Amino acid sequence: MNQDIFFLKKTLDLAKKGMGWTNPNPMVGAVIVKNGKIIGKGFHHQVGQKHAEIEALLSCKENPKGATLYINLEPCIFFGKTPPCTDAIIKAGIKRVFCCTLDPNPKVHSQGIKILQRAGILVEVGRLKSEARKLNEAFFTFHEKKRPFVALKFANSLDGKLATKTGDSKWITNDMARKYARSLRGQYQAVLVGINTVLKDNPHLGVRIKGRKDPIRIILGHKKQIPINSQVLRDNNILIVSAKKILDLLSILKEKEIISILVEGGGETLGEFIDAKVVDKVYAYHAPILIGGKNAVSIGGKGAQTIKESLHLKNVSYKKFGDNILTVGYNADYFF
Amino acid sequence: MNQDIFFLKKTLDLAKKGMGWTNPNPMVGAVIVKNGKIIGKGFHHQVGQKHAEIEALLSCKENPKGATLYINLEPCIFFGKTPPCTDAIIKAGIKRVFCCTLDPNPKVHSQGIKILQRAGILVEVGRLKSEARKLNEAFFTFHEKKRPFVALKFANSLDGKLATKTGDSKWITNDMARKYARSLRGQYQAVLVGINTVLKDNPHLGVRIKGRKDPIRIILGHKKQIPINSQVLRDNNILIVSAKKILDLLSILKEKEIISILVEGGGETLGEFIDAKVVDKVYAYHAPILIGGKNAVSIGGKGAQTIKESLHLKNVSYKKFGDNILTVGYNADYFF
Repeated sequence: MNQDIFFLKKTLDLAKKGMGWTNPNPMVGAVIVKNGKIIGKGFHHQVGQKHAEIEALLSCKENPKGATLYINLEPCIFFGKTPPCTDAIIKAGIKRVFCCTLDPNPKVHSQGIKILQRAGILVEVGRLKSEARKLNEAFFTFHEKKRPFVALKFANSLDGKLATKTGDSKWITNDMARKYARSLRGQYQAVLVGINTVLKDNPHLGVRIKGRKDPIRIILGHKKQIPINSQVLRDNNILIVSAKKILDLLSILKEKEIISILVEGGGETLGEFIDAKVVDKVYAYHAPILIGGKNAVSIGGKGAQTIKESLHLKNVSYKKFGDNILTVGYNADYFF
Repeated sequence: MNQDIFFLKKTLDLAKKGMGWTNPNPMVGAVIVKNGKIIGKGFHHQVGQKHAEIEALLSCKENPKGATLYINLEPCIFFGKTPPCTDAIIKAGIKRVFCCTLDPNPKVHSQGIKILQRAGILVEVGRLKSEARKLNEAFFTFHEKKRPFVALKFANSLDGKLATKTGDSKWITNDMARKYARSLRGQYQAVLVGINTVLKDNPHLGVRIKGRKDPIRIILGHKKQIPINSQVLRDNNILIVSAKKILDLLSILKEKEIISILVEGGGETLGEFIDAKVVDKVYAYHAPILIGGKNAVSIGGKGAQTIKESLHLKNVSYKKFGDNILTVGYNADYFF
């Protein structure tokens, strides 16, 4: 493997360690290399804390002057919760910078690179670009589409029922599948359900895995509709939003800097997101049961007129949990 | 591998060559071995033609006297369309017989073995029993349950829609998946659809593969409802049945010696079979699309009250066709 690719892959691995904690910031990893040896590395642990570049510079075992910095995203240029990384890179005497992609945030986009170049640093952008975009798919979508990245998650029988006609849905999928579904929540800044799901299922909506951050719980509805002893009300990490249209909802979430949501139901809420054509990713679980019944619960909304107009997924993968199966795919219209 | 197991596996391989053609008879293969060498073999090609044992005996390159006969099913004892096989086996001087299972047909069941034993032949029954039952799952079900083996086949989106709200279903699955679905028809004695499917989709319901037998096409409805130029009316290999209840329908098919049916739709017909609790096997295709819509077409009927009461599948397997996936499973209550 090319040495530069090797070090860039390392930045992606480091970046992943911040998964769930960096929102609305991206996951970033940095490696500093001198004479072919890694002399420093770091990653962005959590929003408000040091950026990856700074962590890497501070960790250096020898003077980084003349060294090469590898990083999966263009360094920032502004005073936010931390000072600009470009300043620190220049001051440290870094000679070359490899980064996978530009920062999609218009406050940074290509400015970071220019500042480094003006200071005489050699910069190369673009290797492992698609891997780097995929890792921060929510962050890129948020800045490029000006709305949160939207993923749908649902569990159904082979015949597409989310619950029986009496509303029974516990449990369609097996333990392993549900455990993985909970862990998925940790990859998103927020989890969203409609008020009916809260009333019917009283869901916890937490990750319940040590070391993984619980997402913000977004409930579509009015606060007074939620019973006071509901599990979703267990702490303040909750947002109750009332919006007539999904696009209005997404504008509200954008203002609140929520870069990704995992929509977990129920059938009508999922259907409204599909109708609004704002779905970026789908996690569809299937268990090998047939529920049947025209009055059973399934994904609703208006629905597509034709097969051609329906939401087609791309880059589809399958994951087995015993005899349950999870299909993961991206909106074919948006996929980068 | 044990030598007897080896030769019994061979009988199963031979038997399969008759797939689709032997109904309502089972698929049977036979191997005759003398001094460790195969001296004759045969299989049941087609209903009305020679049984496997007879074919094997006639094919012998040397005198079968003293040889061992391997066969996947107990030999028949009665004059049907051909004379009893037990007579021929005894007359040929066969010394030992290995067969995988007894014949579930009450006209034969264990009588064949007794006749051979009374003639001084050593008989062993039971090795590879479950493989042999699986191969002839339709035949065993027909005789043990006194009704055809019922398989459901349907193709849906990830959200369980068989068609959009406007009825569009062409095509949900891809070419490879549909080709395999057509070949499945060749494994069944009959394919069944409701009259609405004929009116809406004008299906061909044929195998359209050279060398594979076209199944009987069963239409649930009245003849006068079917447009004269419908593809299903292209020849006489068709049965139009009107029955109020699925159990009545199955009694009619039993009388007609139809041992297996593949139910292909539409949503209401599939739902009625699930409600009647007579489903033995399920083929569920999923394509990576989301159709949505509470008025889209999905599996109907009354449906299960609870998850526990819904149709659970066992022995589930998955087959991929590009990004489409086929789930195959057996009714967990019936599976042998």
